[in-house]
Amino acid sequence: MASKPTIGFAGLGAMGGGMATNLVKNGFEVYGFDVYQPLVDKFVQAGGRAAKTPKEAASHADFMVSMVANAAQNSGLLFEGDDAAVHGLGKGKTFILCSTTPTKFPAEIRKRLDEEFNRTDVKFLDCPVSGGTIRAADGTLSIFSSGPNEDLDAAKDVLECMSGNLYRMGDITDGTKTKTIHQLLAGTNIISASEAMGLAATVGLNTQAVADAVNKSDGASFMFENRAPHMLNSDWSALSALGIILKDTTIVTDAAREISFPVPLANTAHFTYLQGVQAGMLKEDDAKLVQLYLPNSQGELVAEMSKADVKMNSSHQVSKETIVDLLSGIHLAASVEGMAFCKELGQDRKLMYEIISKAAGWNAMFTKCIPGMLEKDSWSLAECPEATEVAKKLSEAVEKCRLIQYPCPMAAAALQKYTFASLENKTIGSQGRDGR
Amino acid sequence: MASKPTIGFAGLGAMGGGMATNLVKNGFEVYGFDVYQPLVDKFVQAGGRAAKTPKEAASHADFMVSMVANAAQNSGLLFEGDDAAVHGLGKGKTFILCSTTPTKFPAEIRKRLDEEFNRTDVKFLDCPVSGGTIRAADGTLSIFSSGPNEDLDAAKDVLECMSGNLYRMGDITDGTKTKTIHQLLAGTNIISASEAMGLAATVGLNTQAVADAVNKSDGASFMFENRAPHMLNSDWSALSALGIILKDTTIVTDAAREISFPVPLANTAHFTYLQGVQAGMLKEDDAKLVQLYLPNSQGELVAEMSKADVKMNSSHQVSKETIVDLLSGIHLAASVEGMAFCKELGQDRKLMYEIISKAAGWNAMFTKCIPGMLEKDSWSLAECPEATEVAKKLSEAVEKCRLIQYPCPMAAAALQKYTFASLENKTIGSQGRDGR
Repeated sequence: MASKPTIGFAGLGAMGGGMATNLVKNGFEVYGFDVYQPLVDKFVQAGGRAAKTPKEAASHADFMVSMVANAAQNSGLLFEGDDAAVHGLGKGKTFILCSTTPTKFPAEIRKRLDEEFNRTDVKFLDCPVSGGTIRAADGTLSIFSSGPNEDLDAAKDVLECMSGNLYRMGDITDGTKTKTIHQLLAGTNIISASEAMGLAATVGLNTQAVADAVNKSDGASFMFENRAPHMLNSDWSALSALGIILKDTTIVTDAAREISFPVPLANTAHFTYLQGVQAGMLKEDDAKLVQLYLPNSQGELVAEMSKADVKMNSSHQVSKETIVDLLSGIHLAASVEGMAFCKELGQDRKLMYEIISKAAGWNAMFTKCIPGMLEKDSWSLAECPEATEVAKKLSEAVEKCRLIQYPCPMAAAALQKYTFASLENKTIGSQGRDGR
Repeated sequence: MASKPTIGFAGLGAMGGGMATNLVKNGFEVYGFDVYQPLVDKFVQAGGRAAKTPKEAASHADFMVSMVANAAQNSGLLFEGDDAAVHGLGKGKTFILCSTTPTKFPAEIRKRLDEEFNRTDVKFLDCPVSGGTIRAADGTLSIFSSGPNEDLDAAKDVLECMSGNLYRMGDITDGTKTKTIHQLLAGTNIISASEAMGLAATVGLNTQAVADAVNKSDGASFMFENRAPHMLNSDWSALSALGIILKDTTIVTDAAREISFPVPLANTAHFTYLQGVQAGMLKEDDAKLVQLYLPNSQGELVAEMSKADVKMNSSHQVSKETIVDLLSGIHLAASVEGMAFCKELGQDRKLMYEIISKAAGWNAMFTKCIPGMLEKDSWSLAECPEATEVAKKLSEAVEKCRLIQYPCPMAAAALQKYTFASLENKTIGSQGRDGR
């Protein structure tokens, strides 16, 4: 234990608290800082040490890890005021950025360290994480580490303690770009879970049975499996607040805008999150967005099943299979959109496939269809053999939503992608365009 | 004529060339500058005077008008280098910004004049225009003028000479915000024309007859009437390049992002334009985007009618009326989105109604439905009595597109807005949600 480096840790919230405590459990001495004192107290009870300022945490640290919420908070704790971490960090020590930030941000940090604070000695690693609160506490996160190889080597023990899957992506910004691509999938998967479960509830299906069926089907995703229980239990206790995924889809869509690359599914997810903000849900669990689709139910999915004011008859034809088809169709379109974005951002597609397969952005269609597309490396649905059948089923699901006037922005946007692809390639839409 | 002020004019392209020449025709002495010498030569042939630099144009000017393409070009001509206009402008002279720029830009210009160049004496007016090349040359543009009242008074003769409809919006940035709201409509109307005409061509309707019918119907818009002839004649000679409307939808969606306001139709238009860029159409006429919907035809709409490889039968049921329903449905949803955005940006809704009714963002549903909503000032489709019927017809049009696998991203996105609205209010969707 004596040989382990000392850690400074900033941001002891849902993710950071678990990560810091896991480091403590594994024998690291950790000085934790948070602007919210009760989080620091909780960390101390779990065996951590309290730091009153970022500077104090940094002054003890061989490695200063940051898991605060966003770029502004990172700039603040690193650079602003006399208590900033930059004034505490010892010569040659390392700052590890684990927060999800805009793709330009890591280079900004390096530049400010070098030019504004004359701290070229400070090592800086860009290491965003994925996996949610449980994996954070277990030390089994996916970590997309990037920076100079020798500095990554030196930080290996710390990074390995926090991660189940530790990837090396290249130089700084590559880690953050990887996370951005990953969040395109995370962001589309989360809102799709609400769209799907809202549909199941609206037509009076057994929502628990639907969730069970989805988890065993092509419609499965990490996010669906994680969020559906929140909906089924009406548990809106902000395990991951809407504001977090909204920040991430902002980063995704901003990065796409910078390179003029169209990401219609990510955009649709983004403005559906904004609708949630307008409905007052910014600080609540993102799974609560199911209420957008169930305005009269306050999102009580189980209660919804027996509601008599939604007069259902058998003609709607929405079944468990419809829900699966809706999700599969969205997930495949989003998977291809994500890989196209990956290529456009210059990141390695084969490595990205491995990463997403094991991370929170995973969905069943991704592992089913992406491997067959890696060789050709051409990211259009027109290049995906499975797309024809998936599109046909998605089209039928969207039609069923239309008939009962159920909103399905993600499914509708996905269907447009398949339809454009069908113009590109006779693989899809081989029936021709002559109606049915 | 001796009493008329002297004008400097920067940007002699499709719009600016017409505006500057119109000023010359009306007896103003105009010093024109453009980076592209042939445009200056053409202007001199039309009676204008040539300026070799922005500084030279400005040095003669009582009023320096700028109609260059974007914010970067304005910053360049005003501030960059020894030849910048700021060094030519005489004491107390006026700079009139007519270009469409981001909502933050006018305030930036004022600040740089005051603080960076110590030119508080220079008057600055934020006066974006709308109307297209014909109205530019005729001096019948809509101008959204803003700035200090006394400076607007002093510039009245110049502004009136260029405009058919001259509005006073308030202080600087209000003019640009007005243009931004207007461009939400212009941007959604332009791409909708392509979506509609592409559908007509795909199913083998007489495209000229469809265009004629649309122009007399609820599906009419300024942009449809203007752009459909380009499609019918396969005239892609960049009367208004894709890059221009793409810049404008970037401004619209950026402004919406800054205030976290969802504008799904503007976003859908924006990424459809990006698809056009990816297809290599950046510098071509924006009407050429109809080719996105007709990949095998190179957009030859008339030729498309007789194409045998698109095997049509009567089952598709797409008629002239379907095209009208598709456009009406998109236009109403976009009109309400635009007015909601107007409210969010703090601009006057009644004045905006007047403005758009007479400008290039006009569509028939706007004048049909918006007046009835002004009193309540609540901008949801749920508040629009006509929306129920419009949504029903749009839904049927989208279904017909689905059956023939025709892409209709604008119609699909619009339909989602009606569907969400139907959850808000029983006004729409009064059939209940029990299928049909």
